Amino acid sequence: MTNRRKIIVNIATSADGFIARPDGDLDWLTKRPPPKGFYGFSKFIASIDAKVLGRKTFDVSVRMGAKFDAATPHYVLSRQSPPKSLPPGVEFVSDEVGKFAERLRSGEGKNVWLMGGGDVIASFLDAEAIDEFIISVIPTFIGSGVPLIAPRHCEVPLSLSAVTPFPDGVVQLHYVVQKG
Amino acid sequence: MTNRRKIIVNIATSADGFIARPDGDLDWLTKRPPPKGFYGFSKFIASIDAKVLGRKTFDVSVRMGAKFDAATPHYVLSRQSPPKSLPPGVEFVSDEVGKFAERLRSGEGKNVWLMGGGDVIASFLDAEAIDEFIISVIPTFIGSGVPLIAPRHCEVPLSLSAVTPFPDGVVQLHYVVQKG
Repeated sequence: MTNRRKIIVNIATSADGFIARPDGDLDWLTKRPPPKGFYGFSKFIASIDAKVLGRKTFDVSVRMGAKFDAATPHYVLSRQSPPKSLPPGVEFVSDEVGKFAERLRSGEGKNVWLMGGGDVIASFLDAEAIDEFIISVIPTFIGSGVPLIAPRHCEVPLSLSAVTPFPDGVVQLHYVVQKG
Repeated sequence: MTNRRKIIVNIATSADGFIARPDGDLDWLTKRPPPKGFYGFSKFIASIDAKVLGRKTFDVSVRMGAKFDAATPHYVLSRQSPPKSLPPGVEFVSDEVGKFAERLRSGEGKNVWLMGGGDVIASFLDAEAIDEFIISVIPTFIGSGVPLIAPRHCEVPLSLSAVTPFPDGVVQLHYVVQKG
C-alpha cells in the first residue's frame, strides 16, 4: 500500500476562532512580528507540494503580494471564470470537490495544503477530504469575523496529535480528523 | 497594597470557538466522559468564592441540575426581574457592570469566576473588568453556535500564561488580558 497524499488545513485563527475580520482584514495577524522559525512553517512548506484555496483567499493572497511559481501548483476552487491572466502555477478548478480531492490524493507527490477559506474548508469536510488541521491560535480576541468553517457542519470529531506553544503566545494545535 | 480579587473566565469552547450550539445545546461537551482530575477544575474551584453569570447561563445551569449553596454567592446579571423563588446563594444583579465589577474586586475574598455567556463576557470586557481567560478547547468542530464573546470587541490582546493538554485531546489555554 502506498502512502496517499494527505490534505492538510494550516491556518491561523484569533483566540476567539476567526480566520479574518468580517471584511477579510488580517491586520491582527500580519502586524505581529513573526518569531524566529516562523511557527515551524518552513518545515510544513517542505512537506507539501500543492496548495488549494478558494477564490476570495486567492484574491487576498494576490493583494498581499504572495509569490507563485510553476513548481508548486495553486488550485483555486471557483465556479466563476478565471481572470484572463494568471500567475505561473495557478490553475482554476470548477470540479466537484469530492472528485477533485480524490484526484489530488491519488496523484503522486507530497501532501496538499488546503489554505482556506471557510467555504472551501466546509466543502472539503462535506467530501470527507480533510486529513489534518494545524491551527495557530493568535493570542488576540477580535470579537467577530469569518469563521474557520462555513456554518453547516454539526459535528467533526478530532484527535489531538500535538500542541506547540511559541514564545510570543501563539499556540499551534495539530488535529487529525477522525473518520466516521 | 493588598491583592485585589481577580475576575476570571473559565469556559469550554469547541475547536472552532463556540461555547454552545446555536440553540444553546451543550451535548458536544457534556457527552464527553471527563478524565480523572476533570481538567484541573477542582483546583480552580478552590481558588474562587463567587460566580457571576448571565441570565441565560443561569437558566441552563438550573436545567442541568447545578447545585447552589449559600457559601458561594452566584450573581446573575439581568435587567429582568428575578424569579420569585431563588436557590440559596443566588442574587440577581441589575447594576451597571463596571460598578458591579469594582465592587467585586474591591471586596474581600478569593477570585471570582465569570462563567459566561458571551454577552456577559463582552460587557465585562467593555468595562475592562476581566483579568484572565481559561479556555478549554474541546477537540470537536461544531460548525456554528454561540460565540465566546458577543460580537462587538475589535481587539483584545492577550498574554499566554499556560498551555495544558489533556489525554483526551482537550487543550486548556490560559491567557492574561493585557491592560491598555
